[in-house]
Amino acid sequence: MSRENRRSVCPVACTLDMIGDRWTLLVIRDLMAGKSRYSELARSPEGIATNILADRLTRLQNRGLIEAGVSSTREGSKEYVLTERGRSLLPVLESLRDWGLANIRGTSARIVAGER
Amino acid sequence: MSRENRRSVCPVACTLDMIGDRWTLLVIRDLMAGKSRYSELARSPEGIATNILADRLTRLQNRGLIEAGVSSTREGSKEYVLTERGRSLLPVLESLRDWGLANIRGTSARIVAGER
Repeated sequence: MSRENRRSVCPVACTLDMIGDRWTLLVIRDLMAGKSRYSELARSPEGIATNILADRLTRLQNRGLIEAGVSSTREGSKEYVLTERGRSLLPVLESLRDWGLANIRGTSARIVAGER
Repeated sequence: MSRENRRSVCPVACTLDMIGDRWTLLVIRDLMAGKSRYSELARSPEGIATNILADRLTRLQNRGLIEAGVSSTREGSKEYVLTERGRSLLPVLESLRDWGLANIRGTSARIVAGER
């Protein structure tokens, strides 16, 4: 997002504009948990639509939060990995997870962020 | 949000469904910074539309994150304050702020969350 399109200089507002939609942080959550292939990311429990997943992966690449490469183990398969900048979103995910666990009944954290 | 409408039991997904839109956390940011009147909240640097502000305040009340009362100092003026549950979103705001400050050039945190 260019500076001209910003709502303000507030880092909360700017971060929300970059990753604060319903889906982006769930894709990042799955990448943190060790998923890397498109087909794995498409099987999230939330049932992300494939056009939304493709859009978010493109945006995340354009923003330098993930990198796409070709799988070394599965020929022709594309793989996505978090950049260092993408991995630095771990505290954001953790704070959302902790708040949800403490305040929304019936939530359960099965994915341990950062583990592969 | 009822359990039936949840995308999954993931606490990140559930928290995003509750507060993960472009505006809700900015209203909470302003309340944390000590703003309480509708007219103050409407003057955020991001220029929130009054219908969106009114909608978010209603939602936040319904979710037990804020309480509305009548001002003790200004007759007839409504005041909004965070509940304990609402204040517990401070680590979420802080993680978003810190990530933005570290990763998005030109951002500047003038509001110190938690201060009044």
